[in-house]
Amino acid sequence: MTVDALLSNSKQLSPDEVEWQLIIDAIDPAIRSAVADMVENHAAASVEVFYSTLLTHPEATPFLSNQIVNDHLHSALLRWLQSLFSATAPDLAQLIATQRRIGLVHARMRVPMHVVMHGARLLKNTLRKLLFEIFLTPADLSTAIDYIENMMDLAIEMMSREFVRDLQKEIETDEAYRLVTLGQDVTLEREVQRAALLDWGHKILLAICCNAPPPLPSLESSGFGLWLNHKGSLLFPNTMGIEHIRTSMRRIDRVLIPALSAQVPPDTARIHELQAQIEEIRFLMDDLFKESEALESGRDPLTSTLNRRFLPTIMAREVAQSLRREVPFSILMIDIDHFKSINDRYGHTGGDAVLRGVAEKLISSCRTSDFIFRYGGEEFLIALVETDIKRAFQVAEHIRENVTHILTQPTGSSFSVTVSIGVATFDGHPDYTHLIEDADRALYYAKAEGRNRSVIATDALASLPQLQ
Amino acid sequence: MTVDALLSNSKQLSPDEVEWQLIIDAIDPAIRSAVADMVENHAAASVEVFYSTLLTHPEATPFLSNQIVNDHLHSALLRWLQSLFSATAPDLAQLIATQRRIGLVHARMRVPMHVVMHGARLLKNTLRKLLFEIFLTPADLSTAIDYIENMMDLAIEMMSREFVRDLQKEIETDEAYRLVTLGQDVTLEREVQRAALLDWGHKILLAICCNAPPPLPSLESSGFGLWLNHKGSLLFPNTMGIEHIRTSMRRIDRVLIPALSAQVPPDTARIHELQAQIEEIRFLMDDLFKESEALESGRDPLTSTLNRRFLPTIMAREVAQSLRREVPFSILMIDIDHFKSINDRYGHTGGDAVLRGVAEKLISSCRTSDFIFRYGGEEFLIALVETDIKRAFQVAEHIRENVTHILTQPTGSSFSVTVSIGVATFDGHPDYTHLIEDADRALYYAKAEGRNRSVIATDALASLPQLQ
Repeated sequence: MTVDALLSNSKQLSPDEVEWQLIIDAIDPAIRSAVADMVENHAAASVEVFYSTLLTHPEATPFLSNQIVNDHLHSALLRWLQSLFSATAPDLAQLIATQRRIGLVHARMRVPMHVVMHGARLLKNTLRKLLFEIFLTPADLSTAIDYIENMMDLAIEMMSREFVRDLQKEIETDEAYRLVTLGQDVTLEREVQRAALLDWGHKILLAICCNAPPPLPSLESSGFGLWLNHKGSLLFPNTMGIEHIRTSMRRIDRVLIPALSAQVPPDTARIHELQAQIEEIRFLMDDLFKESEALESGRDPLTSTLNRRFLPTIMAREVAQSLRREVPFSILMIDIDHFKSINDRYGHTGGDAVLRGVAEKLISSCRTSDFIFRYGGEEFLIALVETDIKRAFQVAEHIRENVTHILTQPTGSSFSVTVSIGVATFDGHPDYTHLIEDADRALYYAKAEGRNRSVIATDALASLPQLQ
Repeated sequence: MTVDALLSNSKQLSPDEVEWQLIIDAIDPAIRSAVADMVENHAAASVEVFYSTLLTHPEATPFLSNQIVNDHLHSALLRWLQSLFSATAPDLAQLIATQRRIGLVHARMRVPMHVVMHGARLLKNTLRKLLFEIFLTPADLSTAIDYIENMMDLAIEMMSREFVRDLQKEIETDEAYRLVTLGQDVTLEREVQRAALLDWGHKILLAICCNAPPPLPSLESSGFGLWLNHKGSLLFPNTMGIEHIRTSMRRIDRVLIPALSAQVPPDTARIHELQAQIEEIRFLMDDLFKESEALESGRDPLTSTLNRRFLPTIMAREVAQSLRREVPFSILMIDIDHFKSINDRYGHTGGDAVLRGVAEKLISSCRTSDFIFRYGGEEFLIALVETDIKRAFQVAEHIRENVTHILTQPTGSSFSVTVSIGVATFDGHPDYTHLIEDADRALYYAKAEGRNRSVIATDALASLPQLQ
């Protein structure tokens, strides 16, 4: 049956079920039965090969161990293979539900999808070899290989879809937890952990001075150490600071404390080093909290425009919305002319005043539905939603005229500022970096043509030969 | 060559390069050359089949169109196929870089991975059929099929890894943008958009009263409408409120305004309906902002314990850390005994006071590195980091004794509260739901045994036959 026939003939089949039905319809029942026998006879050995190879995969080790494989996974994979290649026609709804559940469990366990695909590839290689031994006519062999490849691949596709969906939800929640916790409790958190660190420092000195019997309490198992490994690393992911603190902590626990507890009276130099390491940790921790405040603000503190790190979020959404709703979408790439010489002449205070002044003009020239980013040192990017190229050029010219004014310095001196603007509109390419490149090229052309002007990307493109 | 031989023989090969080299080493140069010829001759037709099928895939339509395929994707896929199956040995580093770049672009464009896998499956089916026509001995056929399947699958694996990595970063940034914007500008945002809605309402009434020539300005293209579609939907994703507002907006733009502008003098009933719809939108918008405030707080307002929605974040991390660092991890599932009768007897104020009182005892009994969740109505879950089962049971008993005390009501009446506690420890299973189920079972047993007690999951399991 064709896809259309399947979809129209039986109202009960969902699009997912149609996918499976197409594969199952293509196979002769006798061949399916032979494949089922083969899987039944060789599944255990195939699963053995599968896990012995996967256990050596570097990205599988965080969640795979011999014990987990033996206790849970070996029998689960066996059941999965047998249900996928059963001799009788499978219950499609159940088949789909199984693949989804596996995808969901993998997302919860953070088993990377590509590791699962790697495992499936190994299994397919093993099963394919067996098919060559069983099926002797090319026609039967071809059908059987198609059957095995498509059943396995479709199962992995469905797992993958569920995996990505669920992972997305989990990552959103992780990030929400991090930001909510940072936003609410961060000052209290910092004070509590500063105190916990000092408390441990006090206890350890006391133990050393009083010659307490070993083992002395380690910093890693103290309130501070536990917080760092379990909450700190969640609040400040991907930062070097946490790693530096861990290094100091290890030095204290594995070198300094054993040395101090072994010697009576304690070595004064070692005690000073211990104190220095504790100070170092305190300093690093303060830094962590400070850094995160700056990072979480989302806006450039000088100009109040959006932080560039949010550009992918906005551009991907707007491009998708343009495609889906068929509304226009344009961007402006704006660069302050001769900014370096302004900075050289009026100092950084002058430069900062210009940046603030230009940003104010940008904000007042745009609607509340537009997005204004600080793109680089003296560069801004504006995303103009539901705006065609003609209107975008008008906005650009309005901004350019608005900016070209006299900025009065607190010192009384004044000077004029101009900007060059590249204008580009969404042309249907789903990768937003193409749009940014278009605007960049137009801006480059505006600069090359003498600055203080707005240039449309397509015009710049048409004129490009002249540039060379 | 084996994996080990490859890794030790040539220091230059990375683990990824070894994967490719193994596939390439397994194929005879003559067969590789024949496959390369075949791909060269049939690639264009295969790509044609690929896109004509993929263009009907429901999840491919948001980013695939005939124009995009013809302008960009067709030739890109052709080049990809030819480079993957070249007659000469490929540059491995470049091969890997290509797959990664594709994965990254797919993540940026939000092309779902399973759609790519679906396309690859179609391509493999086409190529496999061709192989059966070319290779006549089973040995050659087997080698050629292995080669094509493994090259394609490994390419998809590498894309997948990059895709998930990059998607993760993008989702984090999306969520950060949303929360940062909600946290900072939300009150201003609400006021500005309320005003924008009123402003449009005023303009449209004026236009109707003055009998202005059509077309009258639509709400969707007003400042408010643009904000709703471009920023509101980003700030409040997955909420029904946005959809309800869109429905009202469509009714206004497509039914009410055309009707009002067609009739002179305007129909009073229609004007009243317009006003009612605007009020409805204002009401829905206020609701959206209010809801989001509650949702973003992260903590249960009554007990100040963590919102249950963060449970997956914490449990997945702690289970992974236990596996990796080989430290123990235990949880307590705590239920207030006879809570229903407390509520019945003392009313909701009494019930709330008990919940708050118990939560305070939990917080004071735990370390700052532990996590306390409101799990259900009268149920709490505590994640005790780096804590073995013996210590966890001690904490449970400490909590139980601490809670069993007399709560004095503001009215002067007093009553005693007890809790039942299920205690479970991480046993190596990477899916944290197993751990929660263990604790749940132990709690059930503690209840069945007469309440006001702590029960360890393994003990509960051993005693289960008695329960029946």
